[in-house]
Amino acid sequence: MTEQQSGIGKTALQLVLANSHEIKEAEEKVQATSYRYCLGKTGSMELQKVVSAIETAAKRNGLVDDQLYREMHALYHAILEAVQGVTRGQVQLGDVMRTVGLRFSVVRGYPYPNSKEGEWIAVALYGTIGAPIKGLEHETSGLGINHI
Amino acid sequence: MTEQQSGIGKTALQLVLANSHEIKEAEEKVQATSYRYCLGKTGSMELQKVVSAIETAAKRNGLVDDQLYREMHALYHAILEAVQGVTRGQVQLGDVMRTVGLRFSVVRGYPYPNSKEGEWIAVALYGTIGAPIKGLEHETSGLGINHI
Amino acid sequence: MTEQQSGIGKTALQLVLANSHEIKEAEEKVQATSYRYCLGKTGSMELQKVVSAIETAAKRNGLVDDQLYREMHALYHAILEAVQGVTRGQVQLGDVMRTVGLRFSVVRGYPYPNSKEGEWIAVALYGTIGAPIKGLEHETSGLGINHI
Amino acid sequence: MTEQQSGIGKTALQLVLANSHEIKEAEEKVQATSYRYCLGKTGSMELQKVVSAIETAAKRNGLVDDQLYREMHALYHAILEAVQGVTRGQVQLGDVMRTVGLRFSVVRGYPYPNSKEGEWIAVALYGTIGAPIKGLEHETSGLGINHI
Amino acid sequence: MTEQQSGIGKTALQLVLANSHEIKEAEEKVQATSYRYCLGKTGSMELQKVVSAIETAAKRNGLVDDQLYREMHALYHAILEAVQGVTRGQVQLGDVMRTVGLRFSVVRGYPYPNSKEGEWIAVALYGTIGAPIKGLEHETSGLGINHI
Amino acid sequence: MTEQQSGIGKTALQLVLANSHEIKEAEEKVQATSYRYCLGKTGSMELQKVVSAIETAAKRNGLVDDQLYREMHALYHAILEAVQGVTRGQVQLGDVMRTVGLRFSVVRGYPYPNSKEGEWIAVALYGTIGAPIKGLEHETSGLGINHI
Repeated sequence: MTEQQSGIGKTALQLVLANSHEIKEAEEKVQATSYRYCLGKTGSMELQKVVSAIETAAKRNGLVDDQLYREMHALYHAILEAVQGVTRGQVQLGDVMRTVGLRFSVVRGYPYPNSKEGEWIAVALYGTIGAPIKGLEHETSGLGINHI
Repeated sequence: MTEQQSGIGKTALQLVLANSHEIKEAEEKVQATSYRYCLGKTGSMELQKVVSAIETAAKRNGLVDDQLYREMHALYHAILEAVQGVTRGQVQLGDVMRTVGLRFSVVRGYPYPNSKEGEWIAVALYGTIGAPIKGLEHETSGLGINHI
Repeated sequence: MTEQQSGIGKTALQLVLANSHEIKEAEEKVQATSYRYCLGKTGSMELQKVVSAIETAAKRNGLVDDQLYREMHALYHAILEAVQGVTRGQVQLGDVMRTVGLRFSVVRGYPYPNSKEGEWIAVALYGTIGAPIKGLEHETSGLGINHI
Repeated sequence: MTEQQSGIGKTALQLVLANSHEIKEAEEKVQATSYRYCLGKTGSMELQKVVSAIETAAKRNGLVDDQLYREMHALYHAILEAVQGVTRGQVQLGDVMRTVGLRFSVVRGYPYPNSKEGEWIAVALYGTIGAPIKGLEHETSGLGINHI
Repeated sequence: MTEQQSGIGKTALQLVLANSHEIKEAEEKVQATSYRYCLGKTGSMELQKVVSAIETAAKRNGLVDDQLYREMHALYHAILEAVQGVTRGQVQLGDVMRTVGLRFSVVRGYPYPNSKEGEWIAVALYGTIGAPIKGLEHETSGLGINHI
Repeated sequence: MTEQQSGIGKTALQLVLANSHEIKEAEEKVQATSYRYCLGKTGSMELQKVVSAIETAAKRNGLVDDQLYREMHALYHAILEAVQGVTRGQVQLGDVMRTVGLRFSVVRGYPYPNSKEGEWIAVALYGTIGAPIKGLEHETSGLGINHI
């Protein structure tokens, strides 16, 4: 672990905030740390598709072991917390007539100097939320962090 | 308004995420856009102090006109939405035995190409949340956006 | 019970919405029904003072028997439901830097034609919510109904 | 703008509370003010149909410009706030096995003496909520207000 | 009413916590009191099926009179409160990608020495909540109590 | 780990439900398992005192290592989830004019046959909630579970 690595949450947020021309640099920055990560996109009026897309990406990229409930449980709660930043109030999309288009990142690693603190997982979201009509939307973001 | 300016929410988030050696560059980037902004810090176990610190900074920096309820109302709801990303679930701090240390930014301007969309306001928060004991904390973030 | 009496909720709302010159007529209208009611005002940044003011008025006016938990329980939940209409989201006032000035009514009686449905209680609230600064506020309302 | 016009919220509530024989008088009262308004009915176990019905009525009656996100955003949040008074706790209907039958009003105008406060929008709801069985229901109401 | 009967809530909880070899003893214990009760199982990703299963069992076993809204209203709110203990935060299942397998009990009777306190109803839930994959789940419980 | 040990949640619930003459038997039952546990009482109108009492008991009894944030973080979220079962809706006590008197248990151990699932922690609560007046109260319960 490099001592100068950013917080795991900031790392996750910077990955989703990077524009297409910045993403390479952002990824290289994370690769220089001890963190592992994955990136993806998801968009839906159904919240469960958002949750599912992030879980699937994290499993496929080996960030969590889907045979261990403990890891899936940690990831799940980090996702739900990030979603609360996105939905701000009601954890609902289509039910209250809105849709999201999101970039997501999942970052896993040792964010504390004391190695006994073990691994943690961060989920960051950034994109748009709004009516299911192009243009009727504004930005939204969320961050969830959990021990794993 | 420069055409290439980032979203108002991303701009607000990048301001609170910048480290001390990045902040100058981050501020210059915003100054090149048509957005106006202010930055500050706040930490408390009392949520109302957090709300109040952001409102005061926004007023002092002329981002909102405190004689117009319409502007204060827009700011207030943007703050509350950002706080929901930070608290994820219960909009409470000391009542549930936790404290925050946050950087905040408030950004105001025209984020949409169509000038009739008028001005919007974004509030971004980034910092730590946790027990009122040094070190027992993890990162947290929130973003609220409203028309003004 | 007169057959044409309004719903218990509408009755409660009309009492809090009546202006000073309409209140006499509004009260007479309720007095012509089988409903019993009381009216009051409360204003605070502390939610518990609002709850307490309504409970006290209902007890003093004999709308509930404060020796019976069953009646206090019914009233309490009707109050909390009405407060949720007022606060819309977080059931909080001062903690999120806002204050209310409210008129309240409590109405008790038999709202259903079938007398076996027994008595119900309605709590209506109407007034203003906003920053603790004169003028920085807008209207708010809430209605709670429970069997008693 | 007539000086004696009621608050925009009270106006919206009185429109949904008016019985069939009172509605003409209630509408005339609003027409004497500077407020614009529309009225409608909606009933569903699906919350998104309620949101959609109000949005559609407001658009068709020219109360909001559906080409401007700013106006749709203001309306949307006013609707959600009104719905919170109706649902009191969970912003859900069919998911928790309940249905609503509602009258709604949308009122737009200048509620503050200071014209710089600009236009605001109020959404009022009144009707019944309960089990999806005739008669197993009680009254419910909600009010949402936003600057536009 | 036997004087030594447990609280109505504890009684409801003990019924859902009893293992198969303990259930006979648990039921006999309740039968020795003045409480009436029913027991059942339900599992779903749809919250409304959970609500519906409990309502149906309570009606079929004569614990509530489905012709009286007052009784259905009391039961409904007791169910919703119990569900909040199970879901802890968002009153949602499938929408946030999770499922439950629950035992439920409904208990009705006079829990207070003062007979004027009348009848109350308790709903207890115990089982598992988790991802819709066998094994990825942990225990969950909830208790709701209301006057009837 | 004995194969027949109950779930960690059920174990925690049975500890708080046991009457004074049952508690010895209940404790012996847990001592026969691999679980570690502690028991306590707390009562307050202030939620933070409830949270604090449970944290302190868990630390003093060596159930969590207060030098490790990871353990305190796991415990904290388990407590908050249990509190949500107690408060059902608003995670608030005195602010909405109510008080609790609770027994609590904290149980730690390996609830899954697969030892890779590691340790989990359960927090159970049982007692009364109501107005701050003796007798105006009913039972309440909550259960929170987290990986540690």
